[in-house]
Amino acid sequence: MTTDTDATTGIRALIEGVRKALHDRDVDRLMTFHRPDFLSYDLAPPLEHRGAEVQRKNTREWFQTFTGPVDVEVRDLAITAGDDVAFSTALQHITGPRTSGEHADIWVRATIGYRKVDGRWMVVHEHLSVPFYMDGSVKAAVDLRP
Amino acid sequence: MTTDTDATTGIRALIEGVRKALHDRDVDRLMTFHRPDFLSYDLAPPLEHRGAEVQRKNTREWFQTFTGPVDVEVRDLAITAGDDVAFSTALQHITGPRTSGEHADIWVRATIGYRKVDGRWMVVHEHLSVPFYMDGSVKAAVDLRP
Repeated sequence: MTTDTDATTGIRALIEGVRKALHDRDVDRLMTFHRPDFLSYDLAPPLEHRGAEVQRKNTREWFQTFTGPVDVEVRDLAITAGDDVAFSTALQHITGPRTSGEHADIWVRATIGYRKVDGRWMVVHEHLSVPFYMDGSVKAAVDLRP
Repeated sequence: MTTDTDATTGIRALIEGVRKALHDRDVDRLMTFHRPDFLSYDLAPPLEHRGAEVQRKNTREWFQTFTGPVDVEVRDLAITAGDDVAFSTALQHITGPRTSGEHADIWVRATIGYRKVDGRWMVVHEHLSVPFYMDGSVKAAVDLRP
C-alpha cells in the first residue's frame, strides 16, 4: 500500500533516474530502468509498442527531434505500492527545443506500472496520453493545463 | 506477481462485472467496483477527473448518449498482481448505438489500477486513451485497429 515507505522511496528514486536520463537524452541509461517485456501505450500510434528494444529505437528517434534537454516536470505524483507490484499516476509537463524550431510544451497523463525484480523496482508498463475533444474536430487536447 | 492465481481470478471477475455493468448501462452497479478516491484519466478533457462521484456523473451522462448496450471487447488482457496492489493492461473495443444515429466503434488502450480492500479487489485508477497523429493534424487516432 501507499504506507510502504521503502517501496515509494525506491520508486521515487526510479522516477528521478528516468527524469534525469530524459534530460540528458541518454537512451542507454534510460533503458536500464525498463524490463525487457516493457509494454508502452505511447503518445504516437500504433496503439501499443511491445518490448524494451522497440522502446529503445523509438526513444532514440524521439531524442533526435530535440536540439537540447528534454525536461519533464512531474506533478501530483501518487504511488500505490505493494511488496513487489506498484503503479503511479502523475501529470507530466514535457518541454524542450525541437529541431523544427518549435519549443515542445505539452501536459500529458502518465500511468506507470512497476515490478520489483531481484530487490530492484523496474518499469514494466507506461501509458502516456492526452484526451481528445469530442466536439467533432476529434483533435488531441495538446493545449490543456492542469 | 502474475503467478498469484487468486489475485488474477479476482481481478478477472471484477473486469467481467464492469463489462456487464457497461453493457446494461447500470451506473449504480458500475460504481460498486470503484473506490471513493478513484482517479480517472479519460478519453475526454480535462486531463483528470478525481473522485467516484465525478465518475458517476460523467458515466451517467455518457450512457445517455447511447440508445442501446455499450459493448466492450477486451483484448490482450495482462494482469500484474501482488498481494494487495495490481494493475492491468488491455485494448478495449467499445461499440454501441448512439443517440446521434452513429454507431460508436473505437479501440482504446486501457490501464487499470487496483487495490485489495477488506479482501475485495476494487478499481482505484483508470487510464483510457488513443494516441494522436504527429503529422501536423494533431488528430486523435480514433480509427486504429489492433
